Amino acid sequence: MKIPSKYLEQVVDQLAILPGVGKRTALRLALQILKKSPDEIERFAQAFLELKDHLKKCKSCGNVSDLDYCGICADPNRDQSMICVVEDVRDVMAIEETSSFKGVYQVLGGIISPMDGIGPQDLNVESLLQKMESGKVNEVIFALSATMEGDTTNFYLYKKLKPYNIKVTTLSRGVSVGAELHYADGITLGRSILNRMPFKVSH
Amino acid sequence: MKIPSKYLEQVVDQLAILPGVGKRTALRLALQILKKSPDEIERFAQAFLELKDHLKKCKSCGNVSDLDYCGICADPNRDQSMICVVEDVRDVMAIEETSSFKGVYQVLGGIISPMDGIGPQDLNVESLLQKMESGKVNEVIFALSATMEGDTTNFYLYKKLKPYNIKVTTLSRGVSVGAELHYADGITLGRSILNRMPFKVSH
Repeated sequence: MKIPSKYLEQVVDQLAILPGVGKRTALRLALQILKKSPDEIERFAQAFLELKDHLKKCKSCGNVSDLDYCGICADPNRDQSMICVVEDVRDVMAIEETSSFKGVYQVLGGIISPMDGIGPQDLNVESLLQKMESGKVNEVIFALSATMEGDTTNFYLYKKLKPYNIKVTTLSRGVSVGAELHYADGITLGRSILNRMPFKVSH
Repeated sequence: MKIPSKYLEQVVDQLAILPGVGKRTALRLALQILKKSPDEIERFAQAFLELKDHLKKCKSCGNVSDLDYCGICADPNRDQSMICVVEDVRDVMAIEETSSFKGVYQVLGGIISPMDGIGPQDLNVESLLQKMESGKVNEVIFALSATMEGDTTNFYLYKKLKPYNIKVTTLSRGVSVGAELHYADGITLGRSILNRMPFKVSH
């Protein structure tokens, strides 16, 4: 694929480093960007520069933030004694949308994945252990993906947390709410039988 | 979906203007970009600024180019009397890859599509008509998509070219080379019977 302009090629190469974007998709996107006015392209590029210059990580939980502490950690109404461990900001947003959790988060910024070269040292764990030292934490909830990488990370964190003798829980796994049983995958269905719960009349 | 940083939100909004990129995909891409070093993010943004500042359109055919005239129009070995009309640079690249065409191109920059608000006035046609006036053109080949929009544009151009009394051709349509017959769609198959060609022993 020979692109007739080095400037266009440069943009295509940059877009193609994004996950799931191949050269052809990158070219399609680049041509779409080209249809915009110079001002719009300027704004597009500027957004990335501002992101680079101004985005911070919350000093407490590691979530993305515009200030030193994110809105959740800075909120006096949140329960600082309950910490939900998640992989990235998308998980925070997903849990926040449920309005089911009033504690705070620990955003690891990844999960242990030797295939992708991500080891324990790449995770944002230090600040979690510091909070443990403070003795103000009652419960840590593991909310990582139900994959081998998630399980590995859970196990690593569990060992790290063990000395603090704290309550460690994990998200319940089972058949999705509202899902038809025969659509559930075998592993989920099998586990949901093994981990069956007392029947409660829902209110 | 509440994004906890206005800078991140800004980037997500900018990415979401790209076709086929929704908010969720944009967030995934933005987080991936965030994992890069500041230098890499700078390079990413810079590529778009350079594109905006330096990319030109070929004065002859309208193709993207770094110079006033693109490599194809400036090539003395190309046959300037044969003009292949295409929608955008991707079509030029696709045809160039076949090495089957030694003429030059006319890149319209779009096709007539009332649904998308694109009318004849948005197409790069002026320079094509100027070349017609010069009297040096022998043949114009329509190589637009086989869609209603493509057909409409073909018809519009045909009317514009008619006064010049020039040979106008279009790409042959039919069953793909190497394709199994029963996989061809009905319309293509039907047309390929109506437009059947004399059998030639291929060499």
